[in-house]
Amino acid sequence: MGSIDLGPFPTVDGFVEAAALDEADALRSFADRFVPTEPDVIYLDGNSLGRLPVASVARVHDVVDHEWGDQLIRSWPERWWDLADEVGSQIAPLIGAESGEVIVADSTSVVLFKLTLAALQARPGRSRIVTDDMNFPTDAYVTIAAADLAGGREIVVVPSADGINGPEDALVAALDDDTTLLTLTHVAFKSGYRYDMERLTRAAHDVGALVLWDLSHSVGAVPVDLGGAGADLAVGCTYKYLNGGPGSPAFLYVNSRIDAEVENPLSGWWGHERPFAFDLEYTPASSIRRFQTGTMPILSLSAIETGVALTTEAGIDNLRAKSIGLSEFLIEQSRVHLEPLGFTLASPADSVRRGSHVSLRHEDGWRIVRAMIEHGDVIPDFREPDNLRFGLTPLTTSHTELHTAIIRIKELMAAGLPQTYPRTRSSVT
Amino acid sequence: MGSIDLGPFPTVDGFVEAAALDEADALRSFADRFVPTEPDVIYLDGNSLGRLPVASVARVHDVVDHEWGDQLIRSWPERWWDLADEVGSQIAPLIGAESGEVIVADSTSVVLFKLTLAALQARPGRSRIVTDDMNFPTDAYVTIAAADLAGGREIVVVPSADGINGPEDALVAALDDDTTLLTLTHVAFKSGYRYDMERLTRAAHDVGALVLWDLSHSVGAVPVDLGGAGADLAVGCTYKYLNGGPGSPAFLYVNSRIDAEVENPLSGWWGHERPFAFDLEYTPASSIRRFQTGTMPILSLSAIETGVALTTEAGIDNLRAKSIGLSEFLIEQSRVHLEPLGFTLASPADSVRRGSHVSLRHEDGWRIVRAMIEHGDVIPDFREPDNLRFGLTPLTTSHTELHTAIIRIKELMAAGLPQTYPRTRSSVT
Repeated sequence: MGSIDLGPFPTVDGFVEAAALDEADALRSFADRFVPTEPDVIYLDGNSLGRLPVASVARVHDVVDHEWGDQLIRSWPERWWDLADEVGSQIAPLIGAESGEVIVADSTSVVLFKLTLAALQARPGRSRIVTDDMNFPTDAYVTIAAADLAGGREIVVVPSADGINGPEDALVAALDDDTTLLTLTHVAFKSGYRYDMERLTRAAHDVGALVLWDLSHSVGAVPVDLGGAGADLAVGCTYKYLNGGPGSPAFLYVNSRIDAEVENPLSGWWGHERPFAFDLEYTPASSIRRFQTGTMPILSLSAIETGVALTTEAGIDNLRAKSIGLSEFLIEQSRVHLEPLGFTLASPADSVRRGSHVSLRHEDGWRIVRAMIEHGDVIPDFREPDNLRFGLTPLTTSHTELHTAIIRIKELMAAGLPQTYPRTRSSVT
Repeated sequence: MGSIDLGPFPTVDGFVEAAALDEADALRSFADRFVPTEPDVIYLDGNSLGRLPVASVARVHDVVDHEWGDQLIRSWPERWWDLADEVGSQIAPLIGAESGEVIVADSTSVVLFKLTLAALQARPGRSRIVTDDMNFPTDAYVTIAAADLAGGREIVVVPSADGINGPEDALVAALDDDTTLLTLTHVAFKSGYRYDMERLTRAAHDVGALVLWDLSHSVGAVPVDLGGAGADLAVGCTYKYLNGGPGSPAFLYVNSRIDAEVENPLSGWWGHERPFAFDLEYTPASSIRRFQTGTMPILSLSAIETGVALTTEAGIDNLRAKSIGLSEFLIEQSRVHLEPLGFTLASPADSVRRGSHVSLRHEDGWRIVRAMIEHGDVIPDFREPDNLRFGLTPLTTSHTELHTAIIRIKELMAAGLPQTYPRTRSSVT
């Protein structure tokens, strides 16, 4: 807790509306399915690290105490060996995939590397990769690494005009018959812009290119229809809206239509057809398993299942509807309370084009965020150089929380921000 | 529990000696630092999945309940961000490394891929990789994958004459000035053969090649001196003798002498000098951190620390002394009780050349192992086609347990083995 005493949560303009919206929220009981923090905080960072489901506590304790401690190696055949497949099949309906097209594997960066390189190897005669400057930086680093290993590719980074809206027309125009791959993040990590997956996928296919979607900032909060869009490849993070726990491993998707065209360039024994035959020769598994490489981190894998189960139970369309309501309320309230203080909206105003987080920009953004963290009852998120991100987790976030957070910012600014805060590593997106 | 009632644990020939050796064991109290199984089993598979330290129960529960559930995103700067470095520094003294030369990253297969490819890129003008047919198969798959991506290399797989002893002379003879890399597992996964790291490293350096050691079957049970041997690169598993938990992530080692020559070919944001600047351009961290790629699986990473702490506390030289004593006792007892039943030793007889597991071979090996598992009080390990592996974990295994296991095998064979058991996936090495 910080040193500025601002008293209890405020009940000013907008509070009554917030309470009424919460009252009408059919998903409001889901907040009780998560472990409360002590002391209670307003957590607006679920787009970075999702909260802890009550069911995950028992699940991880059981994996440690019983499955590891008591069953030991016997848990491999009985429980763990198929877990990454099972969690993949559990995620599949959230992203418009079939069971057997999705599997959990390594970190998001590593699965992105595998699929990027697999795509380049599947289309060897083409020299260009198209992406844009709103993509998450690690996606750029991984794309460069994969391109280098595939013998070099020209990486076309299409600029966004305003850093808020994805440059969709320019992306379509940048595609040509020398393009191997279009690689994009479905919902932009900074502005929350939601790309038109169907349009961009079709445009890439029209020139014979493959498409790879990073679903990290959409899966679990925004409906995704990879199959409907005809997308080729995708990856996604499990520790944001899917509440899988810190650094829980990522999933990957390969459309069964192109299954025969792509191979895992990072072959290891977990992707082998008969891993326990211990052949010196590598025979890839015939299933999606061949995109695995090494032994799965079981403790981190186990908590994904209980996290995803909540999303499935709530229903992705219900979550999307609530998420839109939350973001519209947040934008409206920030117009009333924060625009006069110099804040501007750094996310698309149109809900159709927005994911589940909202960014506001302020020249003192860093100091405001630090003051909020110092004060301790609202945890927001910051992205360089001046973005305050508000992650709206429809399973847990309430309108009252958003209202309170906005009023808290207003109060902190009225109380006077501390002159400087040292900039250190803050959090993990 | 199986259906054959063999009564209580036997007290035949060798039992008194076993009890006396246990009485004299200075490390015997460490067995109490691990969670007992219910019902109690003799666990001879710690070379595959180490047992659960009592301290790891509290540790993982705390990471879930407090660090994730309560602290949420705040745990990244406060606790998690540097954890992979810290655990790396904790492992360093066990393998003759300096702090700053070791870091925990991805699965063993993925870190092996990174370092293999890094080595090939650091020595671009040479066309051969040397290994042998006693290496762990995933090491072979990964080597092939890395070689393909580096533009192709001839992979020379030196055969072992007997599958028990590493073909060291032939390996030395196979090295020439066109060799990029010598890649070997320090202790062979099947026979337990322990390679002469110093000799082979020197031989590789004599021709200008780099050396990569896989320490998965040695770290924590066999002293390793990477620095003393002048080894260039190494990887190792944390879920075997280090008791890090199922699928806990692996560590990698880069000798500071060659630090400037090798780069991480799988660049991602966790290896960036300023990950939260979100530059689209990749600037590798100046430290060993640059060999990381994506977000670490924190639950699986956290349990490594409490596992390694026990090894550090016991002392690696003490553990090695006990491990040799255990394996000599096991070999002696198997000569008395099992040789007459058709078992042969499939590990080096000389303790200097042996790691911490012992393999016995029997034509009915699979049926014997299945009968043991069915009976339920002794858990051994099996490797195709006919190897029974006995993992001797010096932190927990007692001489009495080994004696009982041998007598159990004898009894099961006297009772008559079931005719067939279906061969299914059994366990993870």
